[in-house]
Amino acid sequence: MSHEKSSVNGQAQGLKRVKVAELDQILGVVFKVLDDGFIRVIDYMGSDESIVKAARVSYGQGTKIVHEDRGLIRYLMRHGHTTPFEMCEMEFHIRAPMDCWRQWIRHRTANVNEYSTRYSIAIDATQKTRPDQWRKQSAANRQGSSTFLDSQTGQTLSEKEQKLHEFSRMVYEERLQVDVAREQARKDLPLSTYTEAYWKIDLHNLLHFLSLRMDSYAQLEIRSYANIIGREIVRKWCPLTWEAFLEYRMNSMTLSSIECNVLKAIISGDSQNAEKIAKEFGWLDRVDRKLKLNRERAEFEYKLKQLGLPIPWEDSA
Amino acid sequence: MSHEKSSVNGQAQGLKRVKVAELDQILGVVFKVLDDGFIRVIDYMGSDESIVKAARVSYGQGTKIVHEDRGLIRYLMRHGHTTPFEMCEMEFHIRAPMDCWRQWIRHRTANVNEYSTRYSIAIDATQKTRPDQWRKQSAANRQGSSTFLDSQTGQTLSEKEQKLHEFSRMVYEERLQVDVAREQARKDLPLSTYTEAYWKIDLHNLLHFLSLRMDSYAQLEIRSYANIIGREIVRKWCPLTWEAFLEYRMNSMTLSSIECNVLKAIISGDSQNAEKIAKEFGWLDRVDRKLKLNRERAEFEYKLKQLGLPIPWEDSA
Amino acid sequence: MSHEKSSVNGQAQGLKRVKVAELDQILGVVFKVLDDGFIRVIDYMGSDESIVKAARVSYGQGTKIVHEDRGLIRYLMRHGHTTPFEMCEMEFHIRAPMDCWRQWIRHRTANVNEYSTRYSIAIDATQKTRPDQWRKQSAANRQGSSTFLDSQTGQTLSEKEQKLHEFSRMVYEERLQVDVAREQARKDLPLSTYTEAYWKIDLHNLLHFLSLRMDSYAQLEIRSYANIIGREIVRKWCPLTWEAFLEYRMNSMTLSSIECNVLKAIISGDSQNAEKIAKEFGWLDRVDRKLKLNRERAEFEYKLKQLGLPIPWEDSA
Amino acid sequence: MSHEKSSVNGQAQGLKRVKVAELDQILGVVFKVLDDGFIRVIDYMGSDESIVKAARVSYGQGTKIVHEDRGLIRYLMRHGHTTPFEMCEMEFHIRAPMDCWRQWIRHRTANVNEYSTRYSIAIDATQKTRPDQWRKQSAANRQGSSTFLDSQTGQTLSEKEQKLHEFSRMVYEERLQVDVAREQARKDLPLSTYTEAYWKIDLHNLLHFLSLRMDSYAQLEIRSYANIIGREIVRKWCPLTWEAFLEYRMNSMTLSSIECNVLKAIISGDSQNAEKIAKEFGWLDRVDRKLKLNRERAEFEYKLKQLGLPIPWEDSA
Repeated sequence: MSHEKSSVNGQAQGLKRVKVAELDQILGVVFKVLDDGFIRVIDYMGSDESIVKAARVSYGQGTKIVHEDRGLIRYLMRHGHTTPFEMCEMEFHIRAPMDCWRQWIRHRTANVNEYSTRYSIAIDATQKTRPDQWRKQSAANRQGSSTFLDSQTGQTLSEKEQKLHEFSRMVYEERLQVDVAREQARKDLPLSTYTEAYWKIDLHNLLHFLSLRMDSYAQLEIRSYANIIGREIVRKWCPLTWEAFLEYRMNSMTLSSIECNVLKAIISGDSQNAEKIAKEFGWLDRVDRKLKLNRERAEFEYKLKQLGLPIPWEDSA
Repeated sequence: MSHEKSSVNGQAQGLKRVKVAELDQILGVVFKVLDDGFIRVIDYMGSDESIVKAARVSYGQGTKIVHEDRGLIRYLMRHGHTTPFEMCEMEFHIRAPMDCWRQWIRHRTANVNEYSTRYSIAIDATQKTRPDQWRKQSAANRQGSSTFLDSQTGQTLSEKEQKLHEFSRMVYEERLQVDVAREQARKDLPLSTYTEAYWKIDLHNLLHFLSLRMDSYAQLEIRSYANIIGREIVRKWCPLTWEAFLEYRMNSMTLSSIECNVLKAIISGDSQNAEKIAKEFGWLDRVDRKLKLNRERAEFEYKLKQLGLPIPWEDSA
Repeated sequence: MSHEKSSVNGQAQGLKRVKVAELDQILGVVFKVLDDGFIRVIDYMGSDESIVKAARVSYGQGTKIVHEDRGLIRYLMRHGHTTPFEMCEMEFHIRAPMDCWRQWIRHRTANVNEYSTRYSIAIDATQKTRPDQWRKQSAANRQGSSTFLDSQTGQTLSEKEQKLHEFSRMVYEERLQVDVAREQARKDLPLSTYTEAYWKIDLHNLLHFLSLRMDSYAQLEIRSYANIIGREIVRKWCPLTWEAFLEYRMNSMTLSSIECNVLKAIISGDSQNAEKIAKEFGWLDRVDRKLKLNRERAEFEYKLKQLGLPIPWEDSA
Repeated sequence: MSHEKSSVNGQAQGLKRVKVAELDQILGVVFKVLDDGFIRVIDYMGSDESIVKAARVSYGQGTKIVHEDRGLIRYLMRHGHTTPFEMCEMEFHIRAPMDCWRQWIRHRTANVNEYSTRYSIAIDATQKTRPDQWRKQSAANRQGSSTFLDSQTGQTLSEKEQKLHEFSRMVYEERLQVDVAREQARKDLPLSTYTEAYWKIDLHNLLHFLSLRMDSYAQLEIRSYANIIGREIVRKWCPLTWEAFLEYRMNSMTLSSIECNVLKAIISGDSQNAEKIAKEFGWLDRVDRKLKLNRERAEFEYKLKQLGLPIPWEDSA
């Protein structure tokens, strides 16, 4: 603020726009995603520096001495002070299958202009699946996929896919030819049809998008876009923020109050007590002496593994 | 506020929930829309009375004397005081084709839980078009439709539609049978596939939705839902608000500053001046002595007709 | 889109950031408002050109031929197609009295970082009123002010104001001196105390802010800021949008369905019918043969005046 | 969904509104906060049951078997599936000092109607501080307070406070007496002046509000309101959600990737490696052989204490 003040009272009030040289180099450049999609940065506003500046209007002059920029950004990220990150904004040009876009658009705090198939003829491109890209339903995760199907089955599926795409497009074009309204003709386009959009979002909400869509539980398609946005674009745009985001959010571990209690017992060496707490909480119910599937226990066991700790109840199984 | 105050200081602090008897009768009842869609009210909060109460916390006691409820609601609607309408909330259960839902979801200030085709098998229903329901592309309006195609052409189109629906579903089910992940198997479902969702929105934003989607320019499909929401549901829920909405928004006429100027000249009988203003504004450009198409002029001419006034430049054509 | 496509397939994918030269000249420059407030542009994203580009992704190639830029922006504004305007964003640095800021912050769709009086000592400045600036309560408008008080009364009021400001500040500083927490010490600062903030908002929401806060019913203080934002900043930033905004929103006239009916009757020369409609609607109730005050009628009479039309019921009064 | 379907096809389509008996008993009841504030529930929509129902529309029938209600709500909370919680909504009537309200209103995703001091005379009540309630500035936390000042100093401060309140009110009323507009007369009211508002928010956003405002870092005043909302109201409204919220959010512990690494080293007994990692990260910088203040290290040390673990670098200090 002191700087602002002096500029206000002085004559040299002019400001130059904040620029990020490394980002300027990729402005408009196409990052290919999936078989025929892409993502490009159209414009942006702000930088790490803008976040710091906005935070300092809140925290006042005092913070200047204590924190340097990197420390301040890390502090903001760690403590969920999200408003300074909202001062940065980015506009993308996206080309993605409608099915993927259906998930994308669920992020409401963003500005969107999508290609309209009421005004224009639908883009003549659908997302195609190579024979080795068909994913198996995950058994563990009702909403996920796991390994790939064998290539022979894949071959059959890809051929059928192509036939369906061709038939759908033919039906669409036949409708247009007899002058069916575009808004009605499009009704049976497959969800795999590509659409395009301009999408504008502030950095805080973009990071929220990334935390959900870069996650291993996110569907592969949207994850492919999210990974590029994060690793190729945000990393260059706001490197300090990106680093803090990875450390405090993407790669962090959250322990519930129960998990803390069990962990504490394990750490103290009292694995009996650990089991007792887990049992009280219903984690150790058994059928025929075997532990029943319990999702929360499984999540905790995974965390124990990450911390290099043994699972107390495994021996007793 | 005086009432609130006394209740606060007194003992009888209890409140009963606001109820709307006419709405309670249709709670959960299915309103059929399109060939296989519906809309139902699941729950609601507030009423005309709640709007009045919220407005009075803002305007204070004085307003009590001046306005009775109806007058106050009309005043709020007329002057764009929108926050009291936000105090009412409604939750719907909707079944609509995905193509229609794509438009619906663009209204961001709402809460949504949609049926997930990652978790569950897609609903086995697609929007079907009867032979007499195929709409022609509008010539005047790039995004609209006009009259219907002849029934013979319609017959052919409906048959092809059925084939496409059957083929799409077969492909979908074949994929599931060989254990393709649901999230991937769905990729080629047609946009006409029905989905379901819970949708919750406040009355202010619902009225905004209705003003856009009951409009004659809205696509027929979403307009069918909007009309039922407005005429069958909101009308019963908040009758005073509904009446004011129709009068001040749906059936109102807005004149731009140019239109005001031209109208004033016409009213004063000075049609020469009216033409002069219109000309300066580029409304009367001609090609081969014929007036060029000008959308803004056409809109104004329509307003003149509604007001029972002649079009000054028609004679000169 | 065609342009985008070619750039995508070609090599020259780079884009340059959108710049507005006239705006760049006032970046950071202080516009003084009130006795000690200001507003400055810190950064921006987009321009008229960006709006056009975003609209064209929606409307597709076809629109290119029909509309040139100005026409397209006017069309968007006239028909309430608001999403393209959301692609522009501006960040301001504001210094305003807290009382004014209380109104400002009610606009929710914006990003804010305000000076924190928990972290820092409150800004030592309050909005002061000159003896000739004290405004009388409006009789017509419960929430407004009208003319000024006489300067002698004003003198007394300004002196009292100064005493109160001095006493408040003294109390504040005494508290700080005995080490009261800043968050508590500030509790009795007057609402006239200046605060500062960074405020970021998209153009669509900024125009909504301006339509409410440039209105003659808005409080003088916030109106002073709004006028500068509109006339000095937005006008330079997006001149085509600003022109369309003035014409289709700020200076437009909206007629309710009742007003349309009465107007139509007046225009047709049937003032008896005009009166009949107005009467049915409760506009012409009388007490002792005099027309009762009716706000809606008064608003309509003002519109008639603007259109150069006589008031049918005046003669009969 | 199966239940919904059958109801849709059958005759018995009616639904009854969701009620929460324990909440109905406190509807409208005043919960006193601070010296003259309060909070009351005006209306609500939804319950734990509604959350479950909304989640099941997303996850489909399959989830019915796996999860019972409590387990499903816990799963949603643990994994950040927030949309089902948005289906619940609550409306409050709040009376709070303006200074406190300034913080409150920063939560943007809510609906608000506040008492207007443009329309009505300001509420004649200010938050008063008892001699034993004056809080000292925290040394550790720039934005916080710690212990209380001695009662003698408190006495002086409270007396001065009263004088300031009386003087402010006198000035305000003198202005009104000479007919200064209410909107201007109010300009020097102290921030401690009470205001009232209706505030409506969905449960997801309410929990976010509570997670920030029940936190020990939140200012005492707003924390007093948040505690009552959480412990007296939400606990009764949605008991399963409340329990899950406490366990997975309020009382959870988050470890950054660095903290995980250091913790793992400590757990494995390799405190040398733990120190090495901490050192590399800048946690162990020293001045005159004493560890420099490092906020992130201090936060981690606190977590170690909670887990019953020693601090590796303490001995070496």
